[in-house]
Amino acid sequence: MNCNPRIVIALGGNALQSKDSEPTAEAQLEVVRHTCERIADISCAGYEMAVVHGNGPQVGRIVLASETAKDVVPPMPFDVCGAMSQGYIGYHIQQCLHYALAKRNRNVPVVTLATQMVVEQSDPAFQNPTKPIGAFYSQEEARRLAQEKGYAMREDAGRGWRRVVASPLPRRIVEISAVQKLWEDTIVITCGGGGIPVVEHPDGSLSGVAAVIDKDFAAELLAEQVHADVLMILTEVERVAIRWGKPDQKDLNHLTLAEAARYVDEGHFGVGSMLPKVQAAMKFVRAHPDRKAIITSLDKALDALEGKTGTVVTFA
Amino acid sequence: MNCNPRIVIALGGNALQSKDSEPTAEAQLEVVRHTCERIADISCAGYEMAVVHGNGPQVGRIVLASETAKDVVPPMPFDVCGAMSQGYIGYHIQQCLHYALAKRNRNVPVVTLATQMVVEQSDPAFQNPTKPIGAFYSQEEARRLAQEKGYAMREDAGRGWRRVVASPLPRRIVEISAVQKLWEDTIVITCGGGGIPVVEHPDGSLSGVAAVIDKDFAAELLAEQVHADVLMILTEVERVAIRWGKPDQKDLNHLTLAEAARYVDEGHFGVGSMLPKVQAAMKFVRAHPDRKAIITSLDKALDALEGKTGTVVTFA
Repeated sequence: MNCNPRIVIALGGNALQSKDSEPTAEAQLEVVRHTCERIADISCAGYEMAVVHGNGPQVGRIVLASETAKDVVPPMPFDVCGAMSQGYIGYHIQQCLHYALAKRNRNVPVVTLATQMVVEQSDPAFQNPTKPIGAFYSQEEARRLAQEKGYAMREDAGRGWRRVVASPLPRRIVEISAVQKLWEDTIVITCGGGGIPVVEHPDGSLSGVAAVIDKDFAAELLAEQVHADVLMILTEVERVAIRWGKPDQKDLNHLTLAEAARYVDEGHFGVGSMLPKVQAAMKFVRAHPDRKAIITSLDKALDALEGKTGTVVTFA
Repeated sequence: MNCNPRIVIALGGNALQSKDSEPTAEAQLEVVRHTCERIADISCAGYEMAVVHGNGPQVGRIVLASETAKDVVPPMPFDVCGAMSQGYIGYHIQQCLHYALAKRNRNVPVVTLATQMVVEQSDPAFQNPTKPIGAFYSQEEARRLAQEKGYAMREDAGRGWRRVVASPLPRRIVEISAVQKLWEDTIVITCGGGGIPVVEHPDGSLSGVAAVIDKDFAAELLAEQVHADVLMILTEVERVAIRWGKPDQKDLNHLTLAEAARYVDEGHFGVGSMLPKVQAAMKFVRAHPDRKAIITSLDKALDALEGKTGTVVTFA
């Protein structure tokens, strides 16, 4: 019987990288150090936990470096770039979180699992790739890449042409059994960047695909599978708002599934920013009506768990 | 009580990359697919196992791509490049090994752990860095890098100047508890590239350092800590030889610790090739006199476990 509450924490980009600093590994380590102080606080509050992180800017830079150096070193496929970003970011989190816990005399091991996420080749997202990755190209180069490599290329806001990849829904965490085995006494960093995207073939073999998986949906799937009590999605704002940025903006303390669905329909939440977070929260409470999802900022996470702030999403 | 024999397998470079193919990720995946067939055979023979792999060429290319793209993307520190190589190689192994096992109706989970390895700042290797990494530079550029970044630079066989880093001994596997928890029913890929090199500060915090850890010594340390029955070091040759390449070359079926020590003293084994493998084998049987180490080739691994070939190293 499990006694401690279980939480899956999804870390947004601002938990890994500051807007004010250079996008270096050294600067990331500084931000991660701060982030891990807050995660350690949650662990000390008695939660068993797993950590899921985004990887958008990091995998973008890995792809860009790989493309830039292509005459010297063969470029890496996108799935491998995702695997590399899991190693990079996971290493920083496990190093800093281990220390933040040790300072609090809480000696919980922390480890990163390279994690594959099965997506479906039939996912409609593959018919309409939308996520730009890597370098900017001229129209002529873009046409050549599309022909030679089969890349989908799209003009990006007047700045040039870029490769676009699909953002399919996560369907199955390949390494879930290892997460479950480690869960009770280890903090697992898993599904980094939403997981390394793979498709499953009829013979059961897996192969990597070029795709970007939303890390909030990946965290939601993980939370379902480990029967988490709380799915906590950390972002830049303390609470979800409707009429965001308008004079009559209203911050929300609580959202039921029905209210959330209505606000989604009314278009209150930005595509690619707040919308997937609200949708992931909705999916979790729909699957587990007795559980809750919380959307808040990193620095308010513990307060939100204590009911003092944040937006709590519940079934009813 | 543990009933199945335990094995730690150290994979050499030829298990990841063919000399005949381009150094691409796609070519690596092909080689790894073959490698995992042989590892799956060993698993099916009833062994519990962990897999350690080298990363020399891979991390070299990651560093080179990062240095080449430095005007576009900030270059990555060496410890981060190591973490990225663990994600890259581990992902390929876990994808292929999972399938090779499933084909054999052996559904053992496989997972890669990002693994930090503590080295000592006082290790004499730091006084004499010997491992070249990354790009070649002119003497002038080398002098500038030495001044600006504190890199140790060395002239490399008339081809230009390169950065050299230390190769200290591995002392402590930071994530060993996760390896131990997963061990009995999961195949763990760990200590990739010898582990991400970190030093421990007096306050208990860790930080990455630029160093290359020998993967055979890392596998040996792991084998000691999990009380492995066998440390298996896979390389290009079926057996260790004395007077290697000479008309009176003699392949060895068996080596005692005393014999091995004598041959090492006589200089039979190449520095950076067979010597560290024999030394790692010696260290293991010295620590566990009732166990054995085996040095053989990937394709002969199962035969060697059955006593048909390979070089078996024992205490006496």
